[in-house]
Order: sequence, then structure tokens, then C-alpha cells
Amino acid sequence: MKIHNFSAGPSILPQEVIKKSAEAVLNLDNSGLSLIEISHRSSAFISIMDEAQNLVKELLNLPKGYSVLFLQGGASSQFLAVAQNLLKKDGKAAYIDTGAWSSKALKEARLFGNVEVVASSKDKNHTYIPKEYSIPSDASYLHLTSNNTIFGTQFKKFPETNIPLVCDMSSDIFSRELDFSKFDIVYAGAQKNMGPAGTVLVIVKDEVLGKSERQIPSMLDYQIHASKGSMFNTPPVFAIYTSLLTLKWIKSLGGIKAVEKQNEAKAAILYNEIDSNPKFNGVAAREDRSLMNVTFTLTNENNKARFDSLAKDAGLSGINGHRSVGGYRASIYNAMPIESVQVLVDVMKKL
Amino acid sequence: MKIHNFSAGPSILPQEVIKKSAEAVLNLDNSGLSLIEISHRSSAFISIMDEAQNLVKELLNLPKGYSVLFLQGGASSQFLAVAQNLLKKDGKAAYIDTGAWSSKALKEARLFGNVEVVASSKDKNHTYIPKEYSIPSDASYLHLTSNNTIFGTQFKKFPETNIPLVCDMSSDIFSRELDFSKFDIVYAGAQKNMGPAGTVLVIVKDEVLGKSERQIPSMLDYQIHASKGSMFNTPPVFAIYTSLLTLKWIKSLGGIKAVEKQNEAKAAILYNEIDSNPKFNGVAAREDRSLMNVTFTLTNENNKARFDSLAKDAGLSGINGHRSVGGYRASIYNAMPIESVQVLVDVMKKL
Repeated sequence: MKIHNFSAGPSILPQEVIKKSAEAVLNLDNSGLSLIEISHRSSAFISIMDEAQNLVKELLNLPKGYSVLFLQGGASSQFLAVAQNLLKKDGKAAYIDTGAWSSKALKEARLFGNVEVVASSKDKNHTYIPKEYSIPSDASYLHLTSNNTIFGTQFKKFPETNIPLVCDMSSDIFSRELDFSKFDIVYAGAQKNMGPAGTVLVIVKDEVLGKSERQIPSMLDYQIHASKGSMFNTPPVFAIYTSLLTLKWIKSLGGIKAVEKQNEAKAAILYNEIDSNPKFNGVAAREDRSLMNVTFTLTNENNKARFDSLAKDAGLSGINGHRSVGGYRASIYNAMPIESVQVLVDVMKKL
Repeated sequence: MKIHNFSAGPSILPQEVIKKSAEAVLNLDNSGLSLIEISHRSSAFISIMDEAQNLVKELLNLPKGYSVLFLQGGASSQFLAVAQNLLKKDGKAAYIDTGAWSSKALKEARLFGNVEVVASSKDKNHTYIPKEYSIPSDASYLHLTSNNTIFGTQFKKFPETNIPLVCDMSSDIFSRELDFSKFDIVYAGAQKNMGPAGTVLVIVKDEVLGKSERQIPSMLDYQIHASKGSMFNTPPVFAIYTSLLTLKWIKSLGGIKAVEKQNEAKAAILYNEIDSNPKFNGVAAREDRSLMNVTFTLTNENNKARFDSLAKDAGLSGINGHRSVGGYRASIYNAMPIESVQVLVDVMKKL
């Protein structure tokens, strides 16, 4: 039976990426060596790294002056690195709290100085994106989480500000066109829209670095990683190569503009079913609904066993909601085909 | 042509590990899903993680009271984490400097307090292991690097001490039987004897943690990782699974005792050739020679072009020495078959 993988992350990847990735593990480009046994200093890997960095720049239409890094430690390590690199000694940082991941990010920043939470959606269990708030002009940076995987909300518009803008885009990078010149640091764990778990993409505007007046440990220092072309230490070769395959796949589809159209179409049929079917309710405020993670609950909890059984029979996998929200969550990242979303919609109709 | 991969790391892995790893990328245990698209919270991955942790304990014969972690960021991140977790505020740490990686480790520790270099082999370009030194009893810990990949030296005996003993075993873990109850923290990047780049094994004696009186960022806090079973954040699924395959392979060979015998045999034929062939010289002091990385130079540099050409024709890959040593380095990790070492020896005889 075909499995439709709605997992929140690690999550579905394009079938052709999975096939090519497995082939490279056996024999990289007919070199006679496996991808996972070649030196990261080999010309083969250096060109993989270069191509991946350049393709990120191309797909996101990054202006000059940005470095593209593929690091380890996930977004969770960037919670810490961002504060060390940007938060001035005796300074403060501004955070928008839109859910669990924002809260974790600001908790780590507090180890390095004052954190001002300029807005929070905690009052309604993070089911919306705050719109009215003022951003302190003396903060070292403003941090936000563009898409909230657990709650199913997403920033549609980003705040205008003169202080550096830092964004955790782990769950919606490469899913929609954005003006990246407005961001100073963007980071994203690979395991949703980019590749397997094991690498985190960090995009930094070079000119914001080197100003925190802190002694930064080497592995957390973006300037060191940028100066070494993201090869300061042994990079996670497999995760970077597989991410490159995904980036090439995005390009082959017509780039992010094309992917965004597909994402809108997929989200539309699912939200449309939630809104028109009285047996389901959406979790997130309509204007803030995520195109990546669609959260919904049953109107009548007595239907749970039947819905779960229908879903299982149809091969739907990974649709349970996060424990802090309950209900269901369908993660429909770039690689999710619209046909699989239709299978879910059909199951909802059957209930 | 068969390639004999003598790369220092990422490096050769057993062929059956490579095959099974590629199979799992296509379809994990006939689940219909790829290893790299399953949730790390799935029962499939939880049992992979459990099995890997238990197999490390079994193979290393670890006593009770140790936690086994598979983290990200390589050994380079542990340079920093070790100091944060163990180095008491206003305390000092003792380091033995046996080469480039020891130096990097102690450089990061200096950000957190006093570092006393109790012994160094820098005077002879790190071609030996210091033997005579005293260890300050008031240091928070003693740090050493068991095998020095670049220079080809290896600790044969470890110092007796009452302070916590921390060891970077990146390039010789699982290669020989040791009494691990003497160590308090052992860490090892996967990409030599364990698996692909992308995870670092950390073994910690639980009772040494929680005493540094520091506020430790979550991602660097061994207690947090241990309390979450190494799943505090999304772990590097592929690298851990492939490491598990290697651990199973070691067990199937008869465990570390059997692997150690093979390693001794491989090193013996190569060092024997170096010692008996007047065209080559060993780099490391005889009594400190590494069983993992064999470093040697040409007696007459005029032979270089011919030797390189013979090596290339024989399919030898990755034998160039590190730029700080010159000459040649043959890394003969666990997965290197003795037949490949013999090919190298035959080439040396031919020169």
C-alpha cells in the first residue's frame, strides 16, 4: 500500500531525491566510492558544497553580501548562536513569541542578555500571529519564527524594522517567494523542506557580524564558518548532498514561484474541506493559516476512532496533532503531492 | 578499477554497511518509507536509537552509570561542551597537547577558564606522545587526544589520575580494547571508525555532570541530552542509523577484540615495510605509532613522482600526508581490509 507521509519533520522528500541519494551512497557519480566515505576536502565534495551554496543564493534571489552556511546542531543550536553573534554585551534582543519554538529560541538568548518579548500569542494557545506591537529601536535584533509547525500559523507579512531581522524559517524555507534582502539572518533545519535531518541552513548578511563584542566559541561563530566556506570542521556530507538534490529538484520544477503555486493549491483544497465539512474545525486563525502545516480538530470527539481507522486504511501516516494542540496536523511540505492531499480530503469526506 | 580508500576521514566504511545504508534510504525495513523521511519520534527510529546506544555499551563493555549520546557538531563542538560541562568557575583544566586537535580543544576551553598544558610534543612536531608529566590534582579534568590522525601517534597507556579523565577518541574508538571505566567523558566524531560525518558519539559518566556551576546553553548541556535519551532535538537520523550498521558489523566480526587483532596485523605489515625498505622513513616515534594512521616519508624526494604514479595506477586513494607533516599517511581504520594494505605495501616494494 502506498504510504502518504504527512509527518511534521523529518518529513516527506521528493521520490527522485531519495533515489539519487541512495545511489550516491552506493557509488557517487561512478567514482567507485560511496558519498559517505569520501573526504570533505575532495574535489567531489567541494563542488557539492559550492553548488549547494550557489543554488540557495539563486533560488532565494539573495543579494550580494550574504554568506550561505550548512552547519550542524539544528535550529536549536542557532537559538544560541544568534544571540552570541548579535546580542551586544549589556544590550537587549526583541523576540516575537508565536509558539513552542519561539519560546525555546528566546530562552537560550536570555543566557546572553536581556530579552524583550514584544508580542506573544500565548493568550490563545498560539493560534494566531500577533499584528500590533512596537519594536524597540535599541534592540540588537528582532527574532521571529516564520511558520509555527505545531500550531499551524504562518507570518504572511513581516514587520518593517531598522534593527537586524532574524528569522527561524525551519518549516517554510523554499516554500514561497520572499524578499530576503529584508532579513539579516535566516536559519532553517533541513528536515522539512530541504533534506534529511543533520544539517541546518544559515544565511547571514555579512555586515551584521562581528559587532557583539563577545568572545564567541569557534563552532558558534558565524564569521569563522563564513570565512572557511562552511568547512571549518567536517560538514555533514550526506545531509548536504541530499539537500543539494532537493534544491535541484525545486529548480527543475520552475523555482520557488512554481513551488509556491503548488503549495497554495494543496493548502486550498484542505482548508476548503475543513471549512465546508461540519465534522472538522480549523485550529489557526484564518488569516494566519500555514501553507505548510494544516491543523484541525474533530467537531465531535466520538468520531475519532472511525476517522483514525479510515485514515489508516487509506495509508495516511503522521497526521496526529502535537500533544499541546491535540486533533490532527497534516504537514504538506513542498514534496507532498497534491494527490496525497486529495486522499486525505477524500477520507474527511467519507467520515 | 577497485579504489583502495586510505582517506583520513570521512573514510572507508564496510561495504555491507554502505549497501544496507543505501537500502534503508530507499525503503526502511520494508516500511514503504525512506529512512530519511521518517519522524525521529516514530517507533522505528526510537528502536534504532536504543539499539545503537545499547550496542555502544555492549561493545565497549561500559559499566553502569554512563550515558551514550549521539549529538551533532562533531568533536569540534565537544571541545566547547566539555569545558562548559566540567570546568568549574574560577577553576582550571589540564590538557595534554599531542597535536592539532588537542590544540584546538584547549583553545576553546580557554574561553571558560584557566588551561594548564601539562605536557606537549610540540618540540618535535608532535611525532611522539609525552610520557613524563604531573597532573594537577586541583584541575577540573584532564583532557587528551588518544590518537593523532595528522601525526600518526597514539596513546598506548593512559595516565592514572584521580581527576576526571576526558578523551577525544575520534580516530580510534572501537579499534582496540580499553578499560572505559577509567574515562569520565569520551567523545568521537563518527566519520572514521563509526559511520558517516554528521554525528558525534559522546559517552559521559553521569556523576561528573552538574558540577561546573555554570549556566549551560541547552544544546551544550550533556545532562539535558542524557535526560532526553539523546533526543532533545531532532537527531541526525541517517548518520545514527549508519553508525548502528557499523556497530552491528563490528559485533558480527567478534567484537572489538577481533577487530583489534586485525588492526594489529594490518599495521604490522605496513610498519614492517617502512622499517625494512630504505626508500621510506616512519614519521612517528616507534613506541607511539598509531594503528590507525600510518605516516611516512620518502627518503629521497626525487622518488615522489614515481611513487605517486605507482600508487595511482594501483587505485590507492587518499594517501597524501597532511600539509603540516608532508609525506604520506595511510589511514587503515577498522573497515580497511588487509588486502588493501597489502596493495599499498606492494607498491612500496615496487618503488
